[in-house]
Amino acid sequence: MAGNLLVGQSGGPTAVINASLAGVVQMALSSSQIAGVYGAVHGLLGVLNEDLVDLRQEGEQTLALLRTTPGAALGTSRLKLKAGHYKRLLDVFQAHDIRYFAYIGGNDSMDTAHQVGRLARDRGYELHVLGIPKTVDNDLAHTDHCPGYGSAARFVATTVRDTGLDSWAGALSTPVKIVEIMGRHAGWLAAAAALAREGIPDGAPHLIYLPEHPITVESFVSDVERAYKRYGYVVVALSEGVRDPSGAFVCTATATQDAFGHRQLGGASAILAQEVRNRLGLKARFEKPDTMQRSSAALASSVDRAEALLVGQAAVHAMLAGASDKMVTLEREPGPAYRCGTGLVELSAVAGVEKLMPAAFLAADGHDVTAAFLEYARPLIGEPLPAVAILRRQPVVRRLPACAAPK
Amino acid sequence: MAGNLLVGQSGGPTAVINASLAGVVQMALSSSQIAGVYGAVHGLLGVLNEDLVDLRQEGEQTLALLRTTPGAALGTSRLKLKAGHYKRLLDVFQAHDIRYFAYIGGNDSMDTAHQVGRLARDRGYELHVLGIPKTVDNDLAHTDHCPGYGSAARFVATTVRDTGLDSWAGALSTPVKIVEIMGRHAGWLAAAAALAREGIPDGAPHLIYLPEHPITVESFVSDVERAYKRYGYVVVALSEGVRDPSGAFVCTATATQDAFGHRQLGGASAILAQEVRNRLGLKARFEKPDTMQRSSAALASSVDRAEALLVGQAAVHAMLAGASDKMVTLEREPGPAYRCGTGLVELSAVAGVEKLMPAAFLAADGHDVTAAFLEYARPLIGEPLPAVAILRRQPVVRRLPACAAPK
Repeated sequence: MAGNLLVGQSGGPTAVINASLAGVVQMALSSSQIAGVYGAVHGLLGVLNEDLVDLRQEGEQTLALLRTTPGAALGTSRLKLKAGHYKRLLDVFQAHDIRYFAYIGGNDSMDTAHQVGRLARDRGYELHVLGIPKTVDNDLAHTDHCPGYGSAARFVATTVRDTGLDSWAGALSTPVKIVEIMGRHAGWLAAAAALAREGIPDGAPHLIYLPEHPITVESFVSDVERAYKRYGYVVVALSEGVRDPSGAFVCTATATQDAFGHRQLGGASAILAQEVRNRLGLKARFEKPDTMQRSSAALASSVDRAEALLVGQAAVHAMLAGASDKMVTLEREPGPAYRCGTGLVELSAVAGVEKLMPAAFLAADGHDVTAAFLEYARPLIGEPLPAVAILRRQPVVRRLPACAAPK
Repeated sequence: MAGNLLVGQSGGPTAVINASLAGVVQMALSSSQIAGVYGAVHGLLGVLNEDLVDLRQEGEQTLALLRTTPGAALGTSRLKLKAGHYKRLLDVFQAHDIRYFAYIGGNDSMDTAHQVGRLARDRGYELHVLGIPKTVDNDLAHTDHCPGYGSAARFVATTVRDTGLDSWAGALSTPVKIVEIMGRHAGWLAAAAALAREGIPDGAPHLIYLPEHPITVESFVSDVERAYKRYGYVVVALSEGVRDPSGAFVCTATATQDAFGHRQLGGASAILAQEVRNRLGLKARFEKPDTMQRSSAALASSVDRAEALLVGQAAVHAMLAGASDKMVTLEREPGPAYRCGTGLVELSAVAGVEKLMPAAFLAADGHDVTAAFLEYARPLIGEPLPAVAILRRQPVVRRLPACAAPK
């Protein structure tokens, strides 16, 4: 049916969520069924506040740049729909003759989109609702992977590789480095650090810790000590969501911190770096790039960016073909070369569901990934990481007797 | 005179210190005066341990890749020369007929290089010593800027811009973000965050804090509150070396932390984010990319990389022409277009000297930079940052009466 389209962005931004927005707008502008193309400012909050913008007013150049602009150009919110919102929400849709609603977000947002569709049906108001997946956490069900993940994974793989080379060089000063990686509940992003090793013998990261497998401070420190003896330096990829065996987050659960009331100050990486210093007497630093992981346009994956655009286009295409209450999925085609198309899944099947890493992707001890995971993740980060020089370091024959180690 | 060349890398690596190494090796290999081209493994420590590698054995492809490889391919150390090292050091130089010594490092390393030259003269051993500047801190005297700085500055400007767009989008969830930037004593690198704003009206960073100007927790929190009221969100570029009026580092000096003995856990950014949460009731997060700033090859500055190569070449060129006990400098040519050549300065003039930001580069209140600084720093980061889409966000005319703000 003819009417207007509304698009919104929700939750944490990614490096490519605006590419999905660009895909929606581009496809909507080219459709004769869609008259107005509106954006909700700060997601559902913008709908409730009737705070909508007219995306037809944006110039062609702006829309083109949108594909490579990080952040979320419409603004996001984390508002959860409550009963008190229902009437107002539908009133706004109806007042602006919104017949197509595309919501870009994660599993909470898919739940919200599902509810919007249900409310419209309850009122007998014809509305097509399509969810567009987006999350660096890669934890949406029924899709091979999530737009946003590949770019964050590329950021993680690239920076861990580069900072690992830095660590090797400075091993005599500070041999231990802990890189804290986003992902409160699922280890997908921290696991991507393993891609940093490719082409670098004994390269970083030497240890990987994911929320799927609990750790203790003791086991962590002992792993670090063993890796230090083996490699002479240690780079750890640590998920911010690592937990102790009781299920409590390490960032809030370590005994050392409990007594002082400032437990979350630096996150798990700061706490564990302190434990390494205290227990092993090794200098340790931590890096916490936090939202840089999800917002770096320069380190975005070309594959991820193209797919983010694609799912935006596919959502509008599906709505125009009559679909509703669905989320666009990415479906990897079988075969040696990476190819990915789109599909659709019921919103109810993804709403609020969190997909953890499967056992086949986790090493036996839970603290590393398998070759199967590398196969899965490698194409998602786009072009291979640039090659680096590894010197042969051919020793010059010594001409003097050894002397005592300098102090 | 004929003889062998030894090159070493010292202190913290940068994204382009290997480009300087490549410049040294390339120039040395092409000289008929230089026979062996050796590298000291882990700087001066490698000399003392007679741990040298033969750089003639590295393939052409490796040497080409070296120009874009982060870290420090020979390894570094922070060893300070002591009287007990002198004899051994000269013995190793003499045993391997080292007549040319190129040392790539910061102001401490220039002091070391200066001492090496003096020791050789004392022994009557002919040795040419040249220092090659390298530091992301940009704090070496008598050079317009330091190789390594432009790339770290590009990392800071790019990531602060990108994470600033992320912050704008998510302002309703987490309105305050503090990005902790390297630079213990000088604010050059944190100041470069100001380049993030260019082309983005009211863009991040909204506040900049440098070690050159003291802050109190109270003044900081009140600045953040004012910026929040003005922009609706706040991104702070905070030097890790910010101090309180007594001169103590904020990361160790704030009263809240003193009692607990875990003062350095998260650094200044973690502490100040906690103060924002406690005193303003605003959600605040912090990012601490730490050594990622000095090791990101992908975000390196093309200008910085070319200059790092150039100073390496210039050092060998100068030694072959008879110079010694000098450091290569970068000299900016006057004129509207950026052009930079090299010069030489006495090692004694740069050894141990720390160049802070001049008053002309600091805003009157000390918490921002001037247009003069932007002019200085802009060309150093290479190509302009990629353009981003800024939506016009033309409001759709409201059709309903306003309702109470949703909760």
